[in-house]
Amino acid sequence: MPLEGGERLGPVTLAYETYGELNRDRSNAILVAHALSGDAHAAGFHQGDKTPGWWDPLIGPGKGIDTTKYFVICSNVIGGCMGSTGPSSPNPKTGKPYAMDFPIISIRDMVDAQRHLIDHLGIERLLSVVGGSMGGMQALQWMVSYPDRIRSAIPISTAMKHTPQQIAFNEVGRQAIMGDPNWKGGNYYGGPLPAKGLAVARMVGHITYMSETSMGEKFGRRLKESKRGEKFSPEFEVEGYLESRGENFVKRFDANSYLYITKAMDYFDIVASKAHDQPFKNLKAKVLVIAFKSDWLYPAHQSQEIVRACKWAGVDATYLEVHSTYGHDAFLLETEEETRLIKHFLSSAAGHRDDGPKQTSNEIRLPGHR
Amino acid sequence: MPLEGGERLGPVTLAYETYGELNRDRSNAILVAHALSGDAHAAGFHQGDKTPGWWDPLIGPGKGIDTTKYFVICSNVIGGCMGSTGPSSPNPKTGKPYAMDFPIISIRDMVDAQRHLIDHLGIERLLSVVGGSMGGMQALQWMVSYPDRIRSAIPISTAMKHTPQQIAFNEVGRQAIMGDPNWKGGNYYGGPLPAKGLAVARMVGHITYMSETSMGEKFGRRLKESKRGEKFSPEFEVEGYLESRGENFVKRFDANSYLYITKAMDYFDIVASKAHDQPFKNLKAKVLVIAFKSDWLYPAHQSQEIVRACKWAGVDATYLEVHSTYGHDAFLLETEEETRLIKHFLSSAAGHRDDGPKQTSNEIRLPGHR
Repeated sequence: MPLEGGERLGPVTLAYETYGELNRDRSNAILVAHALSGDAHAAGFHQGDKTPGWWDPLIGPGKGIDTTKYFVICSNVIGGCMGSTGPSSPNPKTGKPYAMDFPIISIRDMVDAQRHLIDHLGIERLLSVVGGSMGGMQALQWMVSYPDRIRSAIPISTAMKHTPQQIAFNEVGRQAIMGDPNWKGGNYYGGPLPAKGLAVARMVGHITYMSETSMGEKFGRRLKESKRGEKFSPEFEVEGYLESRGENFVKRFDANSYLYITKAMDYFDIVASKAHDQPFKNLKAKVLVIAFKSDWLYPAHQSQEIVRACKWAGVDATYLEVHSTYGHDAFLLETEEETRLIKHFLSSAAGHRDDGPKQTSNEIRLPGHR
Repeated sequence: MPLEGGERLGPVTLAYETYGELNRDRSNAILVAHALSGDAHAAGFHQGDKTPGWWDPLIGPGKGIDTTKYFVICSNVIGGCMGSTGPSSPNPKTGKPYAMDFPIISIRDMVDAQRHLIDHLGIERLLSVVGGSMGGMQALQWMVSYPDRIRSAIPISTAMKHTPQQIAFNEVGRQAIMGDPNWKGGNYYGGPLPAKGLAVARMVGHITYMSETSMGEKFGRRLKESKRGEKFSPEFEVEGYLESRGENFVKRFDANSYLYITKAMDYFDIVASKAHDQPFKNLKAKVLVIAFKSDWLYPAHQSQEIVRACKWAGVDATYLEVHSTYGHDAFLLETEEETRLIKHFLSSAAGHRDDGPKQTSNEIRLPGHR
């Protein structure tokens, strides 16, 4: 696979899951794109698991993305560590993990790999591509790279490009990882992991995923029930939460994947990538943009910019800013509201193929430009 | 010195600087309190230095805190590493640096040490105590611990207690430091420093000190002029900025001091410390509370809470929310506006001792409670 950066990657494995059945004319396929730390397991339970996939409240029979109507696909991004080819995969040239020999990948490369998957599944056009955060970036990239292969898109809690603040938070995570002596220039496979560094990166992440309000409601200034003896061990509940989130993350995520994927997000610039100011020109797909009020990591004004770019290009775009106190996590947690919005939008996008009466998408209006 | 936590600390050295002259009746002394990474060098140039003290635009002849009128004192906090007794100071019991044997210190302890200094200088009552961020916490603590020894106070960009979000950012910094293998349980003196960990802590700090807007204006998505060869070395300007800020900080600041001082800030809870809801009861001092609109680390609502607590206690408090795009850094950068506000307020607080006509403080009004 040729990559945006000029290098080539291959062979490429793409881990994916599907839910529901592809209909006869292959018109009911929806691609769900995951965020930084997500994976292909979007819904349902794997054998023995106590927790379901990361967007289970949205995907299933009768749910917002109704698997009795739609065929849902979710694939792990390239660069990832959950089954798709990434820096922890064996480099065919050496038989050892790529580590830093893995090429720089972009959001466009992730989407190109997904396009291969869609081809493989024999799907000419997706009914929709849906995702939050980095998943939303992939939705935007589909709108630009393959406008004729999607009938709709739902970018949620995302941005057309990172601000320096968003880059800065990612950079702190990267520096924490690369500053961990176990990182060893990326060659830690088979030895001790850069666990402390990756945990600190995840802690920073979790602060930015929540809002001041949701942290206040969840933890306040309460102290943990038990505290270890050492000075400066976590004692506020919020400290214990961040510690456990960091530790859990280390068990399931590869530090080098964290470097490559955050960098792909930082490089992402959908306007610059088109060399003109109308990235969505000629896009026929309908677009639903969702933002959440308390999200300060991907603030609503970034979603409004997407809508503005759509409107300038004459794209049928709808914007909704949902009230929530959950911050950036809202795209994973405000599933009731998302169910209502997405169900309706998909039904409308499916158009005459839908069972019910034809619906209009205009009930949700774009607020005036600021 | 007995400490709030029950332990004792001694002997205590307090590094301090003074500017201007104490007048005959010792009524013109102003204590300036520094923030987390500050020191006693608030104004003027030390021999050979290229940059002046950290609040030089505010302190000097004819400036907001006019040293032709006032006697200004600034001392390094205990727990610090800029001359005052802290974890890097020799433990009299062992002759080696305290490291983790240094007792936990609080904002109240910092202020108690300052009170000893004021006694030593023969000052019965301070005309004012002024400070931003952690300096503002010290101003609040003076209002509670020694209400009869101050005639006014100016807490800026500060809070009566940390929210879990504020605790969380500090905790990430602490975990980065303690996760650095060079930290060695705090016993790194004489050996390699936990430089990577402290640099990451400082990077997180700098992100929280700026606003999305000020970062956008300062860096945008511009790339650095030169980039080192390795993958993931800083290439956006904002990354280079954070890297250099982190590296510079390591040269001048002790990692253990960072642990002790951030913990003192997290423990700080001026309301809880009084065991009733009116921490400022019986306070006769006039209070000027200043907040900055784009400060998301110490958001304006926390300053409004201070004003509300003052008003409930019948304290003569004035509130001003200053427009700025600088974020939390505004208290160090919006010096023109601060000059205007502080000069006038001090002149009013000095009352009949002032040369000019008597002024009223009521031109700045408290907005209605939200």
